[in-house]
Amino acid sequence: MINYKEIIEKITPVNEEVLMDAKIRMDNLVKPYGSLGKLEEIAVRLAGITGSIKNEFHKKCTIVMASDNGVFEEGISSSPKAITLIQAVNMTKGITGVGALSKVSNSDVKIVDIGIDSDLEHEAWINKKVAKGTNNIANGPAMSKEEAEKAINVGVGLVEDLVKDGYDLIGAGELGIGNTSTSSAIIMVLSESEAEESVGKGGGLTDEGLEHKINVIKKSIKVNKPDPDDPFDVLQKLGGFDIAGLVGCFLGAAYHRIPIVIDGTISLAAAMVAYRMNPQIRDYMIPSHVSQEPAFKIAMEELGFEPILDIKMRLGEGAGCPLAFNIIDSACSVMNNMALFEEIEVSHEYA
Amino acid sequence: MINYKEIIEKITPVNEEVLMDAKIRMDNLVKPYGSLGKLEEIAVRLAGITGSIKNEFHKKCTIVMASDNGVFEEGISSSPKAITLIQAVNMTKGITGVGALSKVSNSDVKIVDIGIDSDLEHEAWINKKVAKGTNNIANGPAMSKEEAEKAINVGVGLVEDLVKDGYDLIGAGELGIGNTSTSSAIIMVLSESEAEESVGKGGGLTDEGLEHKINVIKKSIKVNKPDPDDPFDVLQKLGGFDIAGLVGCFLGAAYHRIPIVIDGTISLAAAMVAYRMNPQIRDYMIPSHVSQEPAFKIAMEELGFEPILDIKMRLGEGAGCPLAFNIIDSACSVMNNMALFEEIEVSHEYA
Repeated sequence: MINYKEIIEKITPVNEEVLMDAKIRMDNLVKPYGSLGKLEEIAVRLAGITGSIKNEFHKKCTIVMASDNGVFEEGISSSPKAITLIQAVNMTKGITGVGALSKVSNSDVKIVDIGIDSDLEHEAWINKKVAKGTNNIANGPAMSKEEAEKAINVGVGLVEDLVKDGYDLIGAGELGIGNTSTSSAIIMVLSESEAEESVGKGGGLTDEGLEHKINVIKKSIKVNKPDPDDPFDVLQKLGGFDIAGLVGCFLGAAYHRIPIVIDGTISLAAAMVAYRMNPQIRDYMIPSHVSQEPAFKIAMEELGFEPILDIKMRLGEGAGCPLAFNIIDSACSVMNNMALFEEIEVSHEYA
Repeated sequence: MINYKEIIEKITPVNEEVLMDAKIRMDNLVKPYGSLGKLEEIAVRLAGITGSIKNEFHKKCTIVMASDNGVFEEGISSSPKAITLIQAVNMTKGITGVGALSKVSNSDVKIVDIGIDSDLEHEAWINKKVAKGTNNIANGPAMSKEEAEKAINVGVGLVEDLVKDGYDLIGAGELGIGNTSTSSAIIMVLSESEAEESVGKGGGLTDEGLEHKINVIKKSIKVNKPDPDDPFDVLQKLGGFDIAGLVGCFLGAAYHRIPIVIDGTISLAAAMVAYRMNPQIRDYMIPSHVSQEPAFKIAMEELGFEPILDIKMRLGEGAGCPLAFNIIDSACSVMNNMALFEEIEVSHEYA
């Protein structure tokens, strides 16, 4: 398997020539110029990613990197820690949100145990446990450098396997109680923003809970002194195995030139880390829905994306990915099935 | 066939009891409370509409009411008038936007010639022509009272036929050069707002074109003196056959208790007229995407809806409906396929 460091060097830009050809075709489809808005933009970007003007995705999945976070012991979550394990098991039955939504978009869910604090090795999971959860970031680094590398490589290897298996469109999801804390901390440091503007209530904290969470994150940053210019350092010190695994997925998707969908804030924190490792990776990403976490807006602006869906979702699990898959299919169908002006009796005056 | 006036009287409220039961079930699915946002709201509202907590829609279509508008002769559109006919023909081949998008949501497109200015009777259309286009609203009423009633009844009858045919989810689309003028005029009068805040550039007008369009609409209102408290009067004097037909569709959908999706501004103008005829109709409507036309925001606020998709679409054709169908299917899958807390080992502490 290729190491993530090598991948960072080997990622190439999207195919600008095909992208421009796709843009020309899109502008010549029978509709007023630009009237299909973001669907047009998505279809054109996909052409740059795959190198084909017309695209159709036949095998899709949402990756769910599941792991526990040591920072849980600071009382920063409104949910019990056991939820990570319990929901990972429920996911195997398709009875959680991402499972229900994946049925509609005819896509799969790949659950990866990258660090659940449990001895259970479920046969329906991909067992890639780096450790039984991270250390408490309020006391020191979340993980060792070796663990961080290992976790990133889990994502890289997974995408490699998925591509071999015929998957051509993937989504970046996660499961892990406490991971809005780790992801907010990462985005906060990388964007050099204040805790008050980047930390939110996660699954359902009270106002007091939020204040405590902000203090824990501030303390974690003070204790760890992450270098904002070194994304690996920030990830290793403040991240989780879930986020590190997803960083590897973003790297791998760009390397294999397949589109990868960003879900909510945790997924986006990983996207931002990957982007800081190599900015070209950005062009392989497709945003999905607006997350309610404040850090989300900060990171989306840095990446220069606007989400497609604004439906007040804050579930995690990668639940935005299957919804985005439907929209991506729709964008492809526009490119593939609409006629060109020159093919029919409509002049460009239609505007 | 039942007359639209009878329908207005016979529409009953959605089933509040089933709606409340659906809300309870939704709140007990394994996810933090409210974390699936608008998907939850949609699934719960659907229960009120159909009277069943769990829903699955098997036969869907977008209705495209196609007609010409006399106001075209004032030069208010950037497109040639012939586009209405040409695009209606193209729609039969599935090569326009709504066709491409309907493929993905596995839904049909029903094209209704309710007033195209042409002698063509296409076999793939539903031929219900009231007249070859409306009169120029800048000179007098768009249509006679009899024509307006006839056009509304076309929509009522169509929904009756679709329901008999097994359709259980419909969308309200349209095609007609000049119809952002008629729909803006309707919304402007019904909401008693100013032309400057409710009229937009339609398919692609210039700034000068917009100024002219505003003047034409102001003149049309001055000439016709529509009564803002009489939605039929506003429709007859300023509308188009497309809008009138869609008013009938909204009435019919509420009468038959099937959900109906609003597309863009023209579809929404019809929704607003129907709502003013009987406010209960509102609860049978599902919004889809944000339209860029200023009148859209005004009417959406009156109906109390927030669109689901913000993808900068302004095509018309009912193109937002197939996209919304996917989201409606997703909302249903959440209700139908997610487990309840009581069924599994997760307590309500997951929040």
